[in-house]
Amino acid sequence: MTDREPLRPVLYDEQADAVRLLDQRLLPDEERWLSLGGAAEVAEAIRALAVRGAPAIGVAAAYALACEARWGASRELLDRAAERLVRARPTAVNLAWAVRRMAARFDEGAGRLLAEAHAIRDEDEAACRRIGALGAPLIAQGARILTHCNAGALATAGYGTALGVVRAAFEAGKGVSVFADETRPFLQGARLTAWELHRDGIPVTLLTDGMAGWLMQRGEIGCVVVGADRIAANGDVANKIGTYGLAVLARCHRLPFYVAAPWSTIDLATPSGSEEVVMLGGKRIVPAGVEARYPAFDVTPAALVTAIITERGISSGPHPQTLAALA
Amino acid sequence: MTDREPLRPVLYDEQADAVRLLDQRLLPDEERWLSLGGAAEVAEAIRALAVRGAPAIGVAAAYALACEARWGASRELLDRAAERLVRARPTAVNLAWAVRRMAARFDEGAGRLLAEAHAIRDEDEAACRRIGALGAPLIAQGARILTHCNAGALATAGYGTALGVVRAAFEAGKGVSVFADETRPFLQGARLTAWELHRDGIPVTLLTDGMAGWLMQRGEIGCVVVGADRIAANGDVANKIGTYGLAVLARCHRLPFYVAAPWSTIDLATPSGSEEVVMLGGKRIVPAGVEARYPAFDVTPAALVTAIITERGISSGPHPQTLAALA
Repeated sequence: MTDREPLRPVLYDEQADAVRLLDQRLLPDEERWLSLGGAAEVAEAIRALAVRGAPAIGVAAAYALACEARWGASRELLDRAAERLVRARPTAVNLAWAVRRMAARFDEGAGRLLAEAHAIRDEDEAACRRIGALGAPLIAQGARILTHCNAGALATAGYGTALGVVRAAFEAGKGVSVFADETRPFLQGARLTAWELHRDGIPVTLLTDGMAGWLMQRGEIGCVVVGADRIAANGDVANKIGTYGLAVLARCHRLPFYVAAPWSTIDLATPSGSEEVVMLGGKRIVPAGVEARYPAFDVTPAALVTAIITERGISSGPHPQTLAALA
Repeated sequence: MTDREPLRPVLYDEQADAVRLLDQRLLPDEERWLSLGGAAEVAEAIRALAVRGAPAIGVAAAYALACEARWGASRELLDRAAERLVRARPTAVNLAWAVRRMAARFDEGAGRLLAEAHAIRDEDEAACRRIGALGAPLIAQGARILTHCNAGALATAGYGTALGVVRAAFEAGKGVSVFADETRPFLQGARLTAWELHRDGIPVTLLTDGMAGWLMQRGEIGCVVVGADRIAANGDVANKIGTYGLAVLARCHRLPFYVAAPWSTIDLATPSGSEEVVMLGGKRIVPAGVEARYPAFDVTPAALVTAIITERGISSGPHPQTLAALA
């Protein structure tokens, strides 16, 4: 347990009228906060990955619009700012959603817009805490939990989804510890998950992405808990590349595989996992002329998912039915 | 196909009486050859990982002893040099074996020692070419082959084991291509496998270690071919960490999982896979205070191995019986 303030990566500074973001590009070496004056700067921070994780991005965009209003932006300028923010990361579901929610209040004044942005932030953290409370009872006493990428406080308004379950289990005195996949190519596990768990005094051990099988074979992992980028109506889970491989290994070793995600991640209009793939560039660690493939996401079939933990409740399968019942 | 000389990472320069090693630490950025004057320098090159792969290390040690003899070392100095070389990498089976083989000739003169070292080199490359010839027929026309780490020409006297099978299939006109796992933490796949295949004109695409499942799910991988550090009598395979996870994924996707290794790798005195684990240090990409685990090897149960390809023939299972029959 820790006495530190809960980690919240996106704040609003009412004295300076500025959006404050913890610059995730510099972690874990440096804990530097950016102070951004409006939508142009926040859009750039989103594009440059200073802030990441769809919920955290949504909160940042909402505060950017409130900030513009407090600096006296006209309705027309607000509309343009909204558009600019959405374009900064067209794939982030929560970004478009948060901007739409703010736009519905554009005519109600700067004070009302700031209140709405605060509400978006508070509701996201509350959803994470609820996910944690619902998920913690699934975690055994002393469990060693494997996670992948960063579905933590840094990706949300605070507390996190997968790491929300970890935090809630830890706070309940379950004596849990975490194995964090480093998560190549961008090392979100090494840089962000390890950093935020260590900050909060939760025991964490870093692994390279190829080590999970070895640990499962030796009985050193109790369960897997990951976040999700998108979940289809049948429970198929799109998440950071490597998630599917962990789900297969978990099934082979008869370990529970949990997905923790806000309800907004669940896309009931999509019947099953898409083949959506995002190609990203990588650092050159390979001879010039050699091709490299960098799919960012994979899809884990619902059949490999023990439970999907949302703030509305737990879908424990068959997911098409249990998700529909929660809808 | 390529007109280039076959890649041989360890040579003997009879003009200069020196051991020539391709410095694998500098690949793929720079192709620099070291010219080493004797056992002390070669032992240091082994320790510093300028040369790696048990067969390549064995050849380097044999040439180092021949070099000492040609510079006029006494029997006593040769014994001391032999000891120093073995201590440079106590876990490399072929190193101790090659040094013992040379030591049996220490009294026969410098010329005989150089001939013996050449024989060790030539026999290793011949074994690799035989492994390739035996393995190639297992590879389907146009197969996309996944490999892990570097079991290539760079790890042997030349041609390679897993990559020997790839080369033989390629030379047979099978139109194969390779997916190379980057192989964290030391990136042997990205730095070495990609480099040597690219050098020889064999199509290769780099992957991070978490991507194999995604590609198998999409039907983009035809089979897996890896090398081995050690193989137990029952066919359990100790190899670079991450190999076991690939074997599980291959089994789940009903893909063949081949292990290509010289017979010297097979340890009939060990009934099954040990839990031998080597801990290695890593670069700091994680906050200070966070633990990291770096097991270097894992063990793949024989039941997940479709075939073990050696220069003596193919063990296609049940491995305890088929390996014993080849012995």
